[in-house]
Amino acid sequence: MELFSAIEQRRAIKHYDTEASIPEKDFEQIMSATLLSPTSYNIQHWRFVRIKSLELRSKLKDAAWGQQQIDDASEVVILCADTQAWSDRPERYWANADQATQAVLVPMIASFYAGKAQTQRDEAMRSCGMAAQTLMLSAKALGYDTCPMIGFDSDAVADIIQLPDKHVISMLITIGKAKDEAKVRGGQLPLSEVLLDNHF
Amino acid sequence: MELFSAIEQRRAIKHYDTEASIPEKDFEQIMSATLLSPTSYNIQHWRFVRIKSLELRSKLKDAAWGQQQIDDASEVVILCADTQAWSDRPERYWANADQATQAVLVPMIASFYAGKAQTQRDEAMRSCGMAAQTLMLSAKALGYDTCPMIGFDSDAVADIIQLPDKHVISMLITIGKAKDEAKVRGGQLPLSEVLLDNHF
Repeated sequence: MELFSAIEQRRAIKHYDTEASIPEKDFEQIMSATLLSPTSYNIQHWRFVRIKSLELRSKLKDAAWGQQQIDDASEVVILCADTQAWSDRPERYWANADQATQAVLVPMIASFYAGKAQTQRDEAMRSCGMAAQTLMLSAKALGYDTCPMIGFDSDAVADIIQLPDKHVISMLITIGKAKDEAKVRGGQLPLSEVLLDNHF
Repeated sequence: MELFSAIEQRRAIKHYDTEASIPEKDFEQIMSATLLSPTSYNIQHWRFVRIKSLELRSKLKDAAWGQQQIDDASEVVILCADTQAWSDRPERYWANADQATQAVLVPMIASFYAGKAQTQRDEAMRSCGMAAQTLMLSAKALGYDTCPMIGFDSDAVADIIQLPDKHVISMLITIGKAKDEAKVRGGQLPLSEVLLDNHF
C-alpha cells in the first residue's frame, strides 16, 4: 500500500471480527518492519511481548478494565523497553560500523544515559512511539487494523508479562480485522495551533 | 512510495546537500500526514516548531554541540508537546463525535491525566514518537531524508524557541536531501531478543 494511503486509512479500531486471524507470515512482516524503526544510538531497547495464551489475554482484559478489543482482536502486542539497554554490551549496536566509528560512538552511549533516569524513561516512550507507528502502518498496509492503548493498570500488566526490573511498559496494540468502518475523525485541531514558525 | 520501501529506505542521515530545498507543498504534505498520527483521547498535544530563521538555526546548532546537520539540512523541526493539552477545552478533540460519545469520552480525559505528571510526560514522548515516525516516513516517500536527534541541551533549545511552561521538547528532526548514501545498518539485534511470546 502507498504510504500516504496507509497513514490516512489507519484509525484506532475497537471492534474486531472475532473469526479473523493473521497468518504468521503477515505477523512476521509487520514485526520485521517494526524493527527497522530508529532508536537513539541504535540501542534497540524496545521489547515486544506477543500475547498468545488465552489465559493471559483474559487476565490482560481484566487489567484493561474489561476493554473488549483485547479479547476480540487477532493479536495483542505489548510494547515495553529495557531502560538499561544502553549499558548491555553496547558494542553490539555498532557491530557493523568501522573501528573508527565504533571507537567514537560506543563510549558516547554510556555518557549520554548513565545516571539519567528521566532521560532513560523518555527514550523508552519515544522509541516505542516510533515503533508503534511503524507497526500500525505496516498492519494497515497488509489489510489489518489496530488500536493503540494506554488505558490499563500498568502494574497489573507488568505482573502478567513478568516484566523485569528496569523495564517499562509504553503501550499495548491490538491487531485484527475491523468489524465496522471507523467513524469520522474526532476533531482535528487547525494547523496554525500545532505548527509554529521559529518559536511559541 | 510503497510503505515497506519507505520503512526500509528511511535512515538517519547526517550529511545533507546544502543546495537542496523542500518546496512548500512537499513540506505541507509531510506535516498534514504527520497530523494524522494518533494521540490518546485525540488530545493532539504535539506542537511542531519549524525553524526558518537562520539566526535561530545558528543558536540551535550551538545548543546541539555543533552538529553540522542543523546548518546543512533544508528544514529543522522541533517536536514538542503541551503536557496540559488534556485540560484545554477537551470538547474540541471530540467535536465531530455524537453527543453520547462526547458525554462518555470528554470527562474521561481529565480523570486519566489530572494530577499525574509522569503520565503526562510519558504521553508527550510517546505521541511525539508516533508523529516523528510518520514525519520521517512521509519525507522519505517524497524523496527526502531525515535525522531524528536528541543530542542537544534541552534547556538551551527551550530558550531559543520560547517554550512555554508545562511544555516539553521530545526531539528534533532535520529534513533534506542526503549528500551521501547511508552506511550499512549498525547491527540489528536478533528477533528472539526483542520479540517475546507471552512474557519475559
